[in-house]
This record gives sequence, structure tokens and C-alpha cells, in this order.
Amino acid sequence: MEHHLPDTISLLSRTPAALDALLRDLPETWTLCREGENTWSVFDVVGHLIHGERTDWMPRARMVLEFGETRTFVPFDRGGHVQESRGKSLGQLLDEFARLRSENLAELRACNLRQEDLERRGRHPALGVVTLSQLLATWAAHDLTHLHQVSRVMAYQYREAVGPWRKYLGVLQCTGHSSP
Amino acid sequence: MEHHLPDTISLLSRTPAALDALLRDLPETWTLCREGENTWSVFDVVGHLIHGERTDWMPRARMVLEFGETRTFVPFDRGGHVQESRGKSLGQLLDEFARLRSENLAELRACNLRQEDLERRGRHPALGVVTLSQLLATWAAHDLTHLHQVSRVMAYQYREAVGPWRKYLGVLQCTGHSSP
Repeated sequence: MEHHLPDTISLLSRTPAALDALLRDLPETWTLCREGENTWSVFDVVGHLIHGERTDWMPRARMVLEFGETRTFVPFDRGGHVQESRGKSLGQLLDEFARLRSENLAELRACNLRQEDLERRGRHPALGVVTLSQLLATWAAHDLTHLHQVSRVMAYQYREAVGPWRKYLGVLQCTGHSSP
Repeated sequence: MEHHLPDTISLLSRTPAALDALLRDLPETWTLCREGENTWSVFDVVGHLIHGERTDWMPRARMVLEFGETRTFVPFDRGGHVQESRGKSLGQLLDEFARLRSENLAELRACNLRQEDLERRGRHPALGVVTLSQLLATWAAHDLTHLHQVSRVMAYQYREAVGPWRKYLGVLQCTGHSSP
């Protein structure tokens, strides 16, 4: 499957509502629990998605369009959400994520990107040369990697409660696969 | 985390709306694509969830409450959704899942289960003796295993499109872990 920008936008536009429907007002046993020390709760994940809206996807897309390969993206801070999320409720984070995503997609649509724009190149601090197309496809896949994580972190809380069914539940065999 | 029935019901009641928000009217490139032969598309997964509502969770809970260990659950048919889903749209399946889940949760709530009910035992055709508590916790974890699968199947479609970011995306390292 090639990268098709309308498909990417379709997915990106749905993620906030999907997380909202799944998570809003859910008991904190689901949303604040983790898989162990130095792992993320659902609350942390939503904070991280917000931080990406602020500092990663559209800021980097703008850099590609304005400066091409001549400027390197600012490295993404994987702990950047902690301070921003402090003292907020999950409901507030879900609202903030929805608002920022909506604003970012409005900006993306307004760019009216053509195929030749998608082939424009930027510079990632670790990965080197990347295309705008790859950046935007990654934005969508990044939503999915965190939906995958959210479902795993939540399922982990019931790893004992399910008793012998544990071996049938793929999500309980998942080892995380996160990269720093 | 112990099994806490209100937490289970909270999660079970949200899954249909979460899948609806994520999937309804999404391009078929996301919803009909698979990870390879003999794997499931998103469409297949929603069909499977419907089949579970019809034949697995509440029918088995009823059997535990009525017959205890004296009757063995009917084996679940993992291909049972194929015939039922044929000719339907994903939107129709999402509607059907929401309706059946709502009916099943109404029945579950009407049971007014107490702690001693949750400890009642039934007989699974492969796993042997299980408790009602384990069955109901598995119902919720099963939603999560398929949300995990849906996010993975969708992300798989962009495994090339993301370019060098592939190694950072945990969902693209996930090998599935499904059990037959």
C-alpha cells in the first residue's frame, strides 16, 4: 500500500474521537495503571500524543516545506509531555488533543500538497534524509502504535483476572516493542 | 489488579463507540486489507466480535449460572463470523455490534451478580474449570486484544510508506501473537 494522503488524513482525523470514546470517564484503574516502572499509563500516552501535535508533525512538515534538507528537525522529546500533563485530568488531555489535531489537520489541508510536494526532503536528527510523505505516513502509523500500546497497557491490568484464558489472548503475549 | 466487575462493564460499554469512531467510513484500504493470507482484516475482526456477542460471552455466563460445571461450553467457532458478515458493510457490522453489546450488558447488569456469583465455576471445552469472574474479565480483555490487532493490521498497510521511521514504531515490530 502506497502512501495516499487522503487515507492518512482520514485516519488522523478519527483518532481523537476514538480515544475519547474509549477512555473518557473510564475508571482510573484502567487509565493510570502501567506495565511496570518506567512505562507509560494511558494518561501518559495521551499526553505524549499532545506533545507530538505541538512539536513534532506539523512543525517538521513546515520545516521540510520551508527549508528542505538544509535544517535538521529539532529532536523530539519523549519525556516532553510529563510537565505539560501535570495537574490535568484525562478529560482535559482528550479535549486538548482533539483541538490540536483539528488545528493541525486544518493547516495540513490548507497546504494543498501535490505529489511533488510529498517527495520533498527534510533531515531527521537520527534517521537522516526523509521525505514529507514518510513524515505524514508516520504521523498516522504513530497514532496506531499508541492505540496498540493503550490496548496492551489496559489488557495488562487483567493478566491475572482472566485466569487460564491468558494464553489465548494475543495482547497479553505482546512484549511492547517500543523504541527509545 | 483484581477483577472488578464495574470496571469490566465500563470498558465493555465503550468498545463499540470507540471502534465506530475509529472505523466508520474509513477508506477500505484501511478496513479490508490484511497482514497476509489467512489473516483478518478490520472488517473480519468486527464480524468476529459480533459472533462473540451472539455465541460466546453471555451464553457462557448463563450456562455457568444455570448449570455450573455440569455442562461444558459449546466450543467457540473462530470462523463463525464469515458467513454472518457476508454481503454486509462495515457500517452495518458496527451497528450490529453496538446493538448486541448493549443488549448483552443490559442482561449482565440485570443479573445483579454478587461476589459469590463471580466465584461460580463452569467448564470450558479446552481450559477445563473456569470461574464466571474469569469469563467476564476475558470478555473485556478480548475487546482489547482485538483493538490491539486492529491497530496492528492497519499500521501494517503503511510499513513501507513510513520509510526509515519503521524501526521506531513498535506496532510494526509486533508479530501478532494470536492463538488458534
